[in-house]
Formats: sequence, structure tokens, C-alpha cells
Amino acid sequence: MSSPALLRRAPQLLRASLVARLSSSKSPAPGPSTQKSSASFSAPSFPCVDAHAVRESRLLASKNLSTAASADPDPCDTGPEPPYARPNPTSYHVYHHPHPLPLTYHPHAPLPNFDIAYETWGTLSPAKDNVILLHTGLSASSHAASTPLNPAPGWWEAFIGPGKAIDTNQFFVICTNVIGGCYGSTGPSSIEPATGKPWGTRFPIVSIFDMVRAQFHLLDSMGVHRLYASVGCSMGGMQSLAAAWLHPERVGKIASISGTARSSPSAVAMRFAQRSVLMADPNWKNGFYYDSLPPHTGMKLARQIATITYRSGPEWDLRFGRQLRPMTTSDTDTSAPDIPPALSLTHAGPARAPALCPDFLIETYLDHQGEQFCLKYDANSLLYISKAMDLFDMTHPALSALSIRRSRPHSGSSTSSESAEPSSSHPHKPSHKTSHSKSHPPPVNPPAHLSDLAQGMAPLKDIPTLVLGVQSDILFTVEQQREVADALRMGGNERVSYYELGGVWGHDTFLIDVLNVGGAIRGFLS
Amino acid sequence: MSSPALLRRAPQLLRASLVARLSSSKSPAPGPSTQKSSASFSAPSFPCVDAHAVRESRLLASKNLSTAASADPDPCDTGPEPPYARPNPTSYHVYHHPHPLPLTYHPHAPLPNFDIAYETWGTLSPAKDNVILLHTGLSASSHAASTPLNPAPGWWEAFIGPGKAIDTNQFFVICTNVIGGCYGSTGPSSIEPATGKPWGTRFPIVSIFDMVRAQFHLLDSMGVHRLYASVGCSMGGMQSLAAAWLHPERVGKIASISGTARSSPSAVAMRFAQRSVLMADPNWKNGFYYDSLPPHTGMKLARQIATITYRSGPEWDLRFGRQLRPMTTSDTDTSAPDIPPALSLTHAGPARAPALCPDFLIETYLDHQGEQFCLKYDANSLLYISKAMDLFDMTHPALSALSIRRSRPHSGSSTSSESAEPSSSHPHKPSHKTSHSKSHPPPVNPPAHLSDLAQGMAPLKDIPTLVLGVQSDILFTVEQQREVADALRMGGNERVSYYELGGVWGHDTFLIDVLNVGGAIRGFLS
Repeated sequence: MSSPALLRRAPQLLRASLVARLSSSKSPAPGPSTQKSSASFSAPSFPCVDAHAVRESRLLASKNLSTAASADPDPCDTGPEPPYARPNPTSYHVYHHPHPLPLTYHPHAPLPNFDIAYETWGTLSPAKDNVILLHTGLSASSHAASTPLNPAPGWWEAFIGPGKAIDTNQFFVICTNVIGGCYGSTGPSSIEPATGKPWGTRFPIVSIFDMVRAQFHLLDSMGVHRLYASVGCSMGGMQSLAAAWLHPERVGKIASISGTARSSPSAVAMRFAQRSVLMADPNWKNGFYYDSLPPHTGMKLARQIATITYRSGPEWDLRFGRQLRPMTTSDTDTSAPDIPPALSLTHAGPARAPALCPDFLIETYLDHQGEQFCLKYDANSLLYISKAMDLFDMTHPALSALSIRRSRPHSGSSTSSESAEPSSSHPHKPSHKTSHSKSHPPPVNPPAHLSDLAQGMAPLKDIPTLVLGVQSDILFTVEQQREVADALRMGGNERVSYYELGGVWGHDTFLIDVLNVGGAIRGFLS
Repeated sequence: MSSPALLRRAPQLLRASLVARLSSSKSPAPGPSTQKSSASFSAPSFPCVDAHAVRESRLLASKNLSTAASADPDPCDTGPEPPYARPNPTSYHVYHHPHPLPLTYHPHAPLPNFDIAYETWGTLSPAKDNVILLHTGLSASSHAASTPLNPAPGWWEAFIGPGKAIDTNQFFVICTNVIGGCYGSTGPSSIEPATGKPWGTRFPIVSIFDMVRAQFHLLDSMGVHRLYASVGCSMGGMQSLAAAWLHPERVGKIASISGTARSSPSAVAMRFAQRSVLMADPNWKNGFYYDSLPPHTGMKLARQIATITYRSGPEWDLRFGRQLRPMTTSDTDTSAPDIPPALSLTHAGPARAPALCPDFLIETYLDHQGEQFCLKYDANSLLYISKAMDLFDMTHPALSALSIRRSRPHSGSSTSSESAEPSSSHPHKPSHKTSHSKSHPPPVNPPAHLSDLAQGMAPLKDIPTLVLGVQSDILFTVEQQREVADALRMGGNERVSYYELGGVWGHDTFLIDVLNVGGAIRGFLS
């Protein structure tokens, strides 16, 4: 069938699939498009559930289209395929590392080789001493800000540029897509050299340290020996700390924004819930879905859960309260057409009876966030990177059990290395009161693991470090921010800058609060 | 096929289904039962995902068995069918109300009739003045404590009995399963009179007020005019407040434990996430699954999310920390057999490589909670009751828009009624400072809705009220507890007892902390 014919057929395919799905439920024939108040209980329908089947049909139709089109390729057909399925290396740079990358959790099976997608802003100084390596959160690409290659706004557009918090008049900023990701760096959607097919879940478990070591190979290729600063937000905060632990002599300053040095069980729980709904999607197929449809429903559900952890209740109180979603034509009830919709559900009274699908604005907000994300990001990348976050733990016993090698502190050479054995590299067990002052008193009743964390992070003791957290963050809680600052100080670091922000934006504050987050970074970097 | 033959065949059915599911993924042939560290990346398998297919096969096999058995019934066959599919009215009492129940959101279509399952403890006094009506949380049955009919421990076993916090030497305690539930009261799994089939999602949306009015019909049938107290936890706290609002002259005292007077957007968000994963389960079939398999996977995933909201991060820090799940035989890696498993994952090093399925104890805990619940409770009941909680809002504008009628305050008659019109029943707009004292100062910068809430709850102003909340509760936050107490006081209630508990148990504290929750209740009731 020709492509135009398929195009014309797509709506029928969609309807056919939807009808098949609805009739397969053996339910009464569908009635009006939402549950309505009426004198008898009508057969309900569920647009919020049907949306999954509609999306599936749309993807199937476009997949058929692109299969048909591949015989007769149309260069203008950008289609609705997921962006990660069509990497666009003209919008970023790619460093190809042709040698194996040792992996933390697979000591006998390195990654055979890898690509790192990256973008840069500003100008590298002749001495190559003005480099800021920027680490991303879970799902971000290397596109932190607009570039000539890609003029679209980046995820940290307001923070990076001439005169901005990370001033590109002064600094040369590098941001990468992490190993395990799907925006140009090697990850589970990449081709496995041994098979010529996508890795899928044959891709090895990677660690935050693996991500960072891949980044340092990129730095090596650019001749950058020492970073002016390692800066990261969320998972990037973990990378920022990990970079300094692996290469203390190559990191001039550390900024950890809403990160942690040790994932908490509650953060693990929230990521576990996301992985569980994603892996339960029949389209996930144990991670081998690249020749069929992606688990878009599982991704949508996972993103809804994630969004809850990224924001905060107080924000939603202010932003949404108990407001209803806007009325749609299918909500119209002619018995009470004059009742305004913008009131609480009970105000609206009989104008629209509540339903099991979304009634409140907060619900449509979460629905929308899930819908926007579900085809933008590779499901397996979400699984692998969220797992890497769970595994992150900088306590001394955890670090010393890792099968990774780090460069010798203060050796001045990036090639010499030693294992993470504790006694040689940090002989002094940290004191509870080391480096605390009147303005930063030592914690009262420190938990048992804090001393282990102090010992684990002792290699960072000579590096000025910014730790910034947000009191309304429920994912990387403010207690964890205090923990990082306390552990660094207990480990002997006397140059820890620590800020706690108020506000209602929760974990996402680092994306939003240019004034306060940006201000702290600017002050710390100068 | 005979029942024994089917029994013998069940394991084959299970394996066949599982193999079919695994091969349908078009993945490489399954390798070892968990991801392992090895010299090459082996084909992974996912026991945590396969568990859903295993459960499905087990249910299918038992359904075939019970279908076969129904021709030749075996009275001892209690089988693995969901308990709600086999109501057992010999373990509780049932009140049948043969008349229609008006519904808040369906003013023109009452529930044709209904059953209420209930249990009692203690002895009704001759004057019938020692009755405590106990309201449950979302998924609880009427079985709050053991009875001669059902000696199994109840969900509040430690709180109810002779000499306990709710002293059955003194009080006659009634607990019901709510309308919308699945433990003997009329709900979506009940038979719809008009069709002779289960209601499914043709069941109307019910409100907290509808639940309470059904309970008062039960009280009427018992000749109980006035409650000594209305006591409830979680959703039961909502009911407790709603009972007093509907019938202020019939409620002597109110206890709201970890409840709220107005569901917050963040609580709506967390319940929305649960409903979304449940409704996305293909087995849900728009709610018409009663002649096939229930959406057990969606229920498991929903319960995992719910469990996160019922407990707290600090508890998990203490209880699980970053401990690994116990090793299983499938984890064994002969290359490092001597490394102890009970360390953090990184300690365990090569003994067990991390996987995408659960590694940490917190994950297996959530998995287990989901698995335990997924066949115990009806999926549609979860949807309807969680929706009723979302809709609950006792602000004056919300209440006055409801199409329900409440009895006239202080009329002394349960039959006379008036609509929820505001000006007639509570003419005095509450003052910001009414009934506050030095020990209970009025809130600083009260949010706009607090005055609306005070006005809405003004009918409760003469009823002594206990409000108890928990600082680590993330579902019914401590701010919401303060809101209830503040609004009652602003509405003129001078007998509000208010307690905040510390501790790490979060929302579930009301099930666990017998000393403090029980003590406050005992003191308040005496």
C-alpha cells in the first residue's frame, strides 16, 4: 500500500483498534463519552483509558507509514517516531571512544566501546583551565542551552550564557548525555557490536561512576586535564561528587544541587514504583521492543508517578487547589448549562457529575506530563539510569567494595590509579566535629552511616564544595542535603558552602529558581 | 475434564502461559533466572515481571477448576478466588435496606436499595446511649476486631475490647463496611437489580456523605438515635466529620484520627496515580471483569504506590536502610560463593550483580505488600472509594452546592431535614479568632479556604471533637490536621482536643501506635 493510502487509512485503523479494545471488554455498548448524571446509570466510557489505545493505534499507523516510506524515503518525513529512535548528530557533537569502558558491576565484561553526545558553550581558554563539566538529571539530554547547531531552548537555558549564573564569557561549559541514556550516548537503545541489534536489557547495569569515567575520557580527548568546576543537579549532583571522588586532582570545585551522596530507601521506593509500572507494560517485552511499539502506556504511568516526586503539595495547593479541569464538549449536560465550570466540583453541581477519569486540574496536569514524556524518552534508559541512582552510595564500606579504580589523590597524573582500598587513601578516620564551626555546628545525634559517609567522601576534603537543597523536595530531601554537607565537614572539608532554599517547587526548584539557585552558583564559581 | 485432571494439568497451563509470554517478547532465549555478572552479557530474565504471568496462570487454572467444580460442588473448596467474590455473611451481620438511597452526585437516580455489612462489640445499653460508630479507612472491612463469628484478629484488634482504648465493657461498638466496598456492603461487585449482573462501573459515584447516610439507616434499624461518639481513622476521619455535619443532634463526640476535612491536591495526585495504573491493566476492561480475571497486576502496582503513601522515609531509613533483599538460590554465583549477602549491594560485590528487578529490601517489601493485597480487594471498590475521598470537601461553598439534605440542627428529630443552604443553618460567619486561646493561638496567615472550612464545619461547633494527626504522615499531612482543628475553633467550637504525634510510621500510625493513639482516644471518650 502506498504511503498516502496508508495515511488515509490511519484513522480507520485507529477506530478499528479502539472499537476492538472496547468490545473486548465484554461491557455494555459504550454510551456518552464521560460518566454523566442521569435518571438511570448509563454505560460508562473512559476517555482517560481509551487514550492509551488511541496512542497505540496512532503509533502503529505511523510505524506502518515509516516502514512503507523506507522503501521510498521522504527526507521531510520526521513522523511521530520517538526522537531517541532517530538520533540527530547534527545537533550535538559525538565523541566515540573505541576502547572498552570497565564497568563497576561487571568487572569481567567492560562495555566494548561507547559514544558520548555532548554540547559546549563559551570558549575554551588557551590554558584549558576554564572548563565547567555540567551533569544532568535522569532524563535530560546534553542540550542544556541553545547552540548554533540547535537553537531550541535547553533544559537550563536561563542559567547558562553570557552574564548568566554560569557565565559563558568566562567559562567553557560542557554538558553530556550520560552513558545509559538515549540522546546520542551509548545506552540500551544503541546497537550491540556483537549482535548488530539494539542492546535492550542485554545492556549491562551501569553506575554513576561509570557515567563519570566515560565523561573523563571525553575530557581527555579534548586535552582538558583539570575542571574549573564539576556542577550537577539531581542525579547530576551525584555525578559531581563522584567525579571529585574518582579524580580529586582534576576537579577544582564541586557543586551538588539537590543531589545526594547516598540514595535513601524512600527515593528507591519511588523509583521502584516507576520501574514496576513500566516493566509491567506488555509492550516492554523484557526490554526487547525496538522492532515493535515502545511501552508508551507504562512510560506515561511512570512519568505521572515521577512528576509527583518532582513537585510538592504546597505548590499544588497554590497552583491547582481543588479546581476542576476545564469542561469539554463531551461534559455538556443540557439540564444545567449555565453553571460555570471553573468552580470546585461540588460547586459545579449537576453541570458535570464526577467520574473515575480525571476531574481535578491536578489530575489533568499529571496526565499531561505523562502524555508529553511517554514517547520522548527510551523506557530502558529510564530503567537503567534510575537503577544507577538507586545504587549510588558514597559511604566508605560501599565504595571500598566497588570493583572500580580511581586515580591516586594528589598524584597529578590521570593515568596512575589505585583501587578504592580505604586505609591507604584516607588514613584519618573523620572526627565528628572536624571543620564544623559556630555557624555550622556538627549534627546532633548523627545517624550511624554519617561517619561512613564522611570517611567515604574524605578524598573530597580539599575541594571547595557547594551543597544546595530545597526544603520542599520530597525526592532528594533537605535532610539528605544536610547529610552531604555534614559528611564533607566531618571528613575535614573546611570550604563547604551550604544553602537551603524555601519555596514550594520541590525537587524541580533547580530548573525554575534562577534567582536563588543561579545566584548561589554564580557566587560559588566566582 | 474432571476437576482432579484439571488440578494435575494446572502446572502445565502455568508453564505454557509463561513460556508463551516470554517467547512473545521475541527476546533471546531466557538465560539464568536473574541478571548475572559474567564475562559476556547474558540474556536477562525478569522474575519480578514474570510473577504477573505466573499469577495470571494460577488464577486461570483455579478459575477453570472452580467452573468445573461448580457442576460438582465441593463445599470444602475455598480455593484461591478473591474473598470479595465469595462474601461470607456468616462472619458478619448484614442490614438490608429495601428502599432507595439518594446519592450526592446523582440527584435523580438513587441507589435502588443496599446492604450494609457490620459487626459489633460490647453490649448495647438499655437506653441505647453507649454506641460508638467506627468508620474505616479505604480498604478495611467491618472486621475491626475478632468476634465469636470471626475469631481472626481485626484491623484495630489492639484498640477495641474490654479495658482497651475503646472499652467494650462500657461501649457498644459498631463497625461497617462502607457503601462502595466489597466486604458485604453494596458496591460495584454487587448485583445490579435492573440487570441481574454485577454493577461494574455502571455503579454510581458515591460520596463520603452517601456512605454515612447508609450507616445512619443501619442505626435507625437498631433504634439507635444518638451516638455516644463517631470515631474514624483516615477516610474514617472524613466520615466522622461528615456524620456530625449531617446529623449534629445525633452525634455526641467526634474523633478524627489522621483524617481531613478537605482532600488536598497532593493526596488526589497520589490516588490518581493508583487509579491510573489500575485502569490501564488490560484485565480491568472498563470495570466489567467479574466474569473473567481481575486486574491483579494493576492492583499490585496500585498497592505498591499506596504503600509508599502509608509509611514514611524515616521509618524505611531505620527499618530497611540500604539493605539488600535476601539471596535466593537463583542468585548464586559460584565465582564468589563466600561473600555474605546481608551487606549493602556494593559490599556484596561480585556475589550478586544488581538487576532491574528488586535488589533492595525496600523494593521486596513494596512488592510483597502489592502481592498480598492484589487479590484481597475489588479493583472497582478501590476506584470508587478513592474517588469519594478525593471529592470530600467541607468548605462552605462546596457543601452548599451538594444536592444532599441534612437534618435540622438541634431539632431533636431525625426525620425533619433541610437543604444545605448556608445562611439559615449557620448565620454567623466565623471569626478568625473565635474559640482560640493562648494554648491554641489562631493560625498566622490562614489560607483563604480556612474561613470557608470554618463556615462549612460550623454545624459541628457544639460537639466535642478530637483531632489527632501525625507529623510524618505524607498522605493526610499534619498541616491538614491543624487545618481541621483551626477551622473547628474558628467556627466556634471550644472543645477541640488536638494532638500531633511524632514517630516515623507516617499515615499508618493509627494502626500501630496503641499507646499514643489509643491513649488519646481513651482520654477523649471518658
